[in-house]
Amino acid sequence: MVDALKLLALFLALVYLPSSDAFRYRKFRSPYNPKLRNALPSEFSYKTMYMTQNVDHFGFDNTQTYQQRYLVSNQFWNDDGGPIFFYTGNEGDIAWFCNNTGFMWDTAPEFKALLVFAEHRYYGESLPYGKDSYANNTMLNYLTAEQAMADFAELIKFIKQTVPGAAKSQVITMGGSYGGMLSAWMRLKYPNLVLGSLAASAPIWQFEGLAPCGSFYEVVQRTFQTGSQQCVDNIAYSWGAMTSLWPVELDFLTKTFDFCKPIESKDDLSNLLDWLAGVYGNMAMVDYPYPASFLEPLPAWPVKEFCKHLSEPLKDKALIAAVAEGVKMYFNYTGQASCINMSEEATGNLGDQGWGYQACTEMVMPMCSNNTNMFYNIDWDFSSYAATCKYEHGVMPRENWISLNYWGKDIKAASNIIFSNGLLDPWSGGGVLESLSPSLVAIQIPSGAHHLDLRGKNPGDPADVIAARQQEKNIMKNWLYGPGR
Amino acid sequence: MVDALKLLALFLALVYLPSSDAFRYRKFRSPYNPKLRNALPSEFSYKTMYMTQNVDHFGFDNTQTYQQRYLVSNQFWNDDGGPIFFYTGNEGDIAWFCNNTGFMWDTAPEFKALLVFAEHRYYGESLPYGKDSYANNTMLNYLTAEQAMADFAELIKFIKQTVPGAAKSQVITMGGSYGGMLSAWMRLKYPNLVLGSLAASAPIWQFEGLAPCGSFYEVVQRTFQTGSQQCVDNIAYSWGAMTSLWPVELDFLTKTFDFCKPIESKDDLSNLLDWLAGVYGNMAMVDYPYPASFLEPLPAWPVKEFCKHLSEPLKDKALIAAVAEGVKMYFNYTGQASCINMSEEATGNLGDQGWGYQACTEMVMPMCSNNTNMFYNIDWDFSSYAATCKYEHGVMPRENWISLNYWGKDIKAASNIIFSNGLLDPWSGGGVLESLSPSLVAIQIPSGAHHLDLRGKNPGDPADVIAARQQEKNIMKNWLYGPGR
Repeated sequence: MVDALKLLALFLALVYLPSSDAFRYRKFRSPYNPKLRNALPSEFSYKTMYMTQNVDHFGFDNTQTYQQRYLVSNQFWNDDGGPIFFYTGNEGDIAWFCNNTGFMWDTAPEFKALLVFAEHRYYGESLPYGKDSYANNTMLNYLTAEQAMADFAELIKFIKQTVPGAAKSQVITMGGSYGGMLSAWMRLKYPNLVLGSLAASAPIWQFEGLAPCGSFYEVVQRTFQTGSQQCVDNIAYSWGAMTSLWPVELDFLTKTFDFCKPIESKDDLSNLLDWLAGVYGNMAMVDYPYPASFLEPLPAWPVKEFCKHLSEPLKDKALIAAVAEGVKMYFNYTGQASCINMSEEATGNLGDQGWGYQACTEMVMPMCSNNTNMFYNIDWDFSSYAATCKYEHGVMPRENWISLNYWGKDIKAASNIIFSNGLLDPWSGGGVLESLSPSLVAIQIPSGAHHLDLRGKNPGDPADVIAARQQEKNIMKNWLYGPGR
Repeated sequence: MVDALKLLALFLALVYLPSSDAFRYRKFRSPYNPKLRNALPSEFSYKTMYMTQNVDHFGFDNTQTYQQRYLVSNQFWNDDGGPIFFYTGNEGDIAWFCNNTGFMWDTAPEFKALLVFAEHRYYGESLPYGKDSYANNTMLNYLTAEQAMADFAELIKFIKQTVPGAAKSQVITMGGSYGGMLSAWMRLKYPNLVLGSLAASAPIWQFEGLAPCGSFYEVVQRTFQTGSQQCVDNIAYSWGAMTSLWPVELDFLTKTFDFCKPIESKDDLSNLLDWLAGVYGNMAMVDYPYPASFLEPLPAWPVKEFCKHLSEPLKDKALIAAVAEGVKMYFNYTGQASCINMSEEATGNLGDQGWGYQACTEMVMPMCSNNTNMFYNIDWDFSSYAATCKYEHGVMPRENWISLNYWGKDIKAASNIIFSNGLLDPWSGGGVLESLSPSLVAIQIPSGAHHLDLRGKNPGDPADVIAARQQEKNIMKNWLYGPGR
């Protein structure tokens, strides 16, 4: 009976789904929300510094330079041999990542480490052309992982040359998500500078030919199953329920979700489904075991909270209303928003613009869902993706460059990298989940979401993330002091 | 007595030496002479192929492509598992390197290897902007080692994808000199594509802070000592003898050397000394044990041939005349030239233009000589070097980029590289002469000059180069078939 209902819903979805390109695939947006500046605990402090960097590390015609921002804390450093923990900044304001990477602060005293948080070019204050950095693709030309890593390399050298005592300090890179990829790739490409790397929730295999394109949504579903199977079934039916309101009852959606802007067109409906798929992905990413304000201010285990609204078999408008209640919990847990701004995730900040460009150039991450799980059908088709990139950003993505340049699945020539993944995190599907060698160590954190291990310690931490952090520290000690070096 | 004479000569040199910048340092020119197309033995043949490459691998604003040339021979290949020997082209026409790398041809049958010779962008036919490639620095912007290596990486992928059987072939990169550096660096940066590398006479440490700037000239002197100590002493005196002819007897130099263009000015004299230092360097590079036409058509052991003219104590004009006879042997062994064109080495071919640009951007190789050997004083001063680059090429070199990007002396994280060096070769001073780990193996060839081991087998081969080639083959077999993989 349930299967028949699901089939009917899928049939309806297939008939009614709008045909715009947005439905053919989901282009992932950077989820970071720099408006949420969780302050550092007051016992921690850092200095803000700037370094002059070449805008173009890979050519000599452009001789311009810019000021890269980085944050430094020597509160706990032993300048006579203590290591440097170097955070490889992601697609956003570095202060935000600094404040959300409590693990480095918690661990610094034990290692007597110097902390450095390096901002990624084109984000935060590190804008190669100031406010014109995003003006056109000529300005944006230097927004690549290679350029950012060359910045990091030059910065490491600069710190070692200029900070008394740092010359003899070993460097361990750390980062999460895209920053985790950069962290691992720094060890691949600059092992002369980097002793080892902690790459947390780094989907280095979320690229063409390296992982199934459906893995992300499969993990989202698995995480929602921790709410309940009923929750997952309800979500699976909800797409059809929503599309069946087209064309005459779209105002029901507007009212039920408290959207700031009304749902009025086929495209709006299409965007709603796309947005909801993204919300579920983000909700799984931040399914933390305690209240946190990472992407949004949320209660503990937000997926379970969401699923409380969907714990009974529901259909049609009652189903939609229950989904809406759950979504409002996600976006308005603090009760301060008068309406939900669906376009906020899509258009908000510079970081999101930058990631949009990166996703349309190097960071081509195939994503799909094939109706066998709780999502509607999401195709992966590189040609369509490329065409949309050309239309939206005026650039053609290169599908295989990342896997060529960063070694794809053949990374056994590398060493000293920890790949940690929370299994609730949808990005774990593109991560390294099994150790590849004695020094390429995978750590699975079953009750962890997106780089939970990088967050500061919390009374609500499950045992597995506590154990993971301990294992990470043990491995780093082995790099620094053990016979492995 | 000799010492007093030498001191006097040095004093004269110091007094009389012209003061132009050319004397402050020597900027190395690429010595390759593409006019000498030693044909392949007739039993060998290859096909000429082209691949479409992005002009810019590191940015997305320039969407232009160009045709990279590469040469392929499947004469000896077993397409069911045979490896690929991939020559990483240097600063010149790839056909020239193909014809001068007999080792690959001699070795292919034993390994059943596919041979690929990849041309370096901006050389030979692989011109990103055709005949305009050298028109200005905007056109030249994509002439870097990183871009060339990205070409090689894409080409390896392309061959594996398109040549039936190649997908499962292991790739070993091979190259000599700058091509040897690229070969080693390919293993550093793309071990996913490259199983191992034979880097012959690759001075990967001829960069700031990695080797003494005087090592090159010290090895030149050591090689000339194989002629005789008297030869070296005569050369040491000759600089003073020549400068003492200024200002009224310069025509003696013109006539004695049979120069095509007269020596008339202080700058001409300065250029002559600079040119002669380069000739001695090149002569040591090609001090092969049998007649060869690598840079010039030469007899066996050309340094010894040269030194035959300088085997007695000489001074003043007799000394200059003897030097001139030796130099004419070097440039006109075949007796076909009616005069010596001193500017030929400096201005000739496109390859030399390209290397001039590379030496003024990334490939900053400090060179000096401090009067304690047979050369005149040659300072290394990066500021002067950079100023000259700015003046001559309109670009500012980056002194430390290569050692940062290619790991400087800290390359122990790498594996599977053979560094072979002939000890007669001045570039050996910047090479890896001692093994760094069980899989970073240095091979010294005492009677070898510049990548003698890469040349085809010859009845005149000394035992040490025969042994070196055998060791290289054994190591490659271990990579391919041994337990090391």
